[in-house]
Amino acid sequence: MNATFSAVPHLIGSVEMYAYDRLKKFVYEIFVKIGCPANHAETAADVLTAADLRGVDSHGVSRLGSYVRLWEIGRINGTPDIRIVHETPGTACLDGDRGLGLVVAPAAMELAVEKAKKVGTGWVAVRNSNHFGIAGYHAMLALKNDMIGIAMCNTSPLVAPTFSTEKLLGTNPIAIAIPAGNQPPFVADFATTPVAYGKIEMHMQRGEDIPPGWMQDAGGRPTTDAHTGKKGGALLPLGGDRVHGSHKGYCLSASVDILSAVLPGAGYGPWAPPFLGYLPLPEDSVGDGIGHFCGAISIDAFRPVAEFKSHMDNWISRFRRAKPVEGQPKVLIPGDPEREMAAKRHAGGIPVSEPVVKDLQRLSEKFNIEF
Amino acid sequence: MNATFSAVPHLIGSVEMYAYDRLKKFVYEIFVKIGCPANHAETAADVLTAADLRGVDSHGVSRLGSYVRLWEIGRINGTPDIRIVHETPGTACLDGDRGLGLVVAPAAMELAVEKAKKVGTGWVAVRNSNHFGIAGYHAMLALKNDMIGIAMCNTSPLVAPTFSTEKLLGTNPIAIAIPAGNQPPFVADFATTPVAYGKIEMHMQRGEDIPPGWMQDAGGRPTTDAHTGKKGGALLPLGGDRVHGSHKGYCLSASVDILSAVLPGAGYGPWAPPFLGYLPLPEDSVGDGIGHFCGAISIDAFRPVAEFKSHMDNWISRFRRAKPVEGQPKVLIPGDPEREMAAKRHAGGIPVSEPVVKDLQRLSEKFNIEF
Repeated sequence: MNATFSAVPHLIGSVEMYAYDRLKKFVYEIFVKIGCPANHAETAADVLTAADLRGVDSHGVSRLGSYVRLWEIGRINGTPDIRIVHETPGTACLDGDRGLGLVVAPAAMELAVEKAKKVGTGWVAVRNSNHFGIAGYHAMLALKNDMIGIAMCNTSPLVAPTFSTEKLLGTNPIAIAIPAGNQPPFVADFATTPVAYGKIEMHMQRGEDIPPGWMQDAGGRPTTDAHTGKKGGALLPLGGDRVHGSHKGYCLSASVDILSAVLPGAGYGPWAPPFLGYLPLPEDSVGDGIGHFCGAISIDAFRPVAEFKSHMDNWISRFRRAKPVEGQPKVLIPGDPEREMAAKRHAGGIPVSEPVVKDLQRLSEKFNIEF
Repeated sequence: MNATFSAVPHLIGSVEMYAYDRLKKFVYEIFVKIGCPANHAETAADVLTAADLRGVDSHGVSRLGSYVRLWEIGRINGTPDIRIVHETPGTACLDGDRGLGLVVAPAAMELAVEKAKKVGTGWVAVRNSNHFGIAGYHAMLALKNDMIGIAMCNTSPLVAPTFSTEKLLGTNPIAIAIPAGNQPPFVADFATTPVAYGKIEMHMQRGEDIPPGWMQDAGGRPTTDAHTGKKGGALLPLGGDRVHGSHKGYCLSASVDILSAVLPGAGYGPWAPPFLGYLPLPEDSVGDGIGHFCGAISIDAFRPVAEFKSHMDNWISRFRRAKPVEGQPKVLIPGDPEREMAAKRHAGGIPVSEPVVKDLQRLSEKFNIEF
């Protein structure tokens, strides 16, 4: 029932540079080929390539082939009828109809924002969806309405709860985006594990050990073997071990799983369907697809927007001014690295590693689209 | 501007056993002496001693003297006029009028629950309050209404953001309580640091080093010196160092600070007022007191309650059945250890360490209340 560790095309090796617009156009055309209406394909391409732009290479075009594979085996529906199953003035439960999470999650956020306009906050739980790309994209959709955005998603089980040898939880990301005034927004977006699995794959390819505190072996013992995932090992929750608070990372990951999947009726815990199409679906299903939990919190439901933004500017500039540790240029504000990377890659192009280029070329041939 | 590390009476050494009811009655009488009306004193005593009952000794009667001290210097108001500053159907901003957080937070939760009954969820941000004791108590108030409860609080700045030598954030706890059916509820309640400062004090008193990954020295370097807090050192965010995801703990702690303090207008970041009365208030105040952020999420705003509870039971029993690591008796569900401890201490009494007993005796003499 446990998912095997992934193999999205490898992210190291020689790279080729691609202009953002060119990459996005290609992704758009692929999504059109799998049946997406133009507006869905545009959204999905925007979400997916936002990851490449922001430097989260593990969640961008490197995953395009995996989405296509899920479509081929009928687990992704290109023309979903995204349907409200139940709602109240401030909440809704959505059925994503096996749509791309890249399309379903923005629809959920839009609904959350509309509800927040009326009653102060809006919360939308989604079932029967697929992985939604980078959580931060969705959370940031609330910003233009002067709202705080929150997005989370349950994912394939690769993480062992504290004291367990079994992989029962995903890397279950959380994002929170908070508007500021003159400063750029605060955007936290993180998996509830010390690192994403992509980092471990990079150590594997380089023949390097991993630091202790990232993974455990099949018996639940500490390990520095980067290949342990293939031998029954598991990712550890944020905190690493009990002494360093792994039970807190376990609580966080579990909370994301329950809000995103148990609440709307998606597959939770070890029953979350794997992202990789060649892996079997879990037996004895407990829900539909994977789930999301999206929220929008209207600032002016608590405090005048201008007042809040001026204090956020003060918060951010105080933290920016904090004395750095020797050898570090500065203290970062959540969202800084991704925003700086996006500016750089918008101007100078996006580096795509050789195995990903090959994967995109295969898609280009398969669908007869110029790459 | 940075707070000094605390000295609530030490938690190790010889202990005396006290019956829960006796301890709670004493706390109630002290709160009446500092002016609390009977219903407030009852609530405050219930919250404070819930910490002792649940094994969170650092947040129970060991802090009673500190609350009294804050009252003596006018920072706690025994008869607060807890006032709604602004509200919408699903939200409110409360001014706690310098009340005990032990009283203000339950009032905020009650309001959140009432709002959730009407529009699906309710969210209440609070300013001008004081430390609210254990976050889990407040989150659990939502359970009896078949709601998920969430509670967080910003606290005195003892934590350095990743890459900084300055203490700009508190241990900022988060609690989430989720109802189940036949199983006991899921209750996560944790500080956003690897450990609470109380654990470091215990190492100090025993003359032991602390493990790497808990604190940094004044220069931001890794240290195992338990006394580093007195020499300019700081607690690290959950994750410990950058390699192990401390930037994620920093994001979490910062998010709690912003939701609990910037949103309602409390003192945030390094401007959070210290819990210890002998420490000066920060200059150039940016808000009133400390803040809380409380939420209630009605299950039936998303999914029928019976259906949700049956899946929560399945989630919990699956995790309970997970294969444990060798040498560990079982995999824990969040809330298990505290509930088991509460049952044990209800029956067998609460161990109170000698320095805390002395502190309570001082209060007994000062207020002429039998202890």
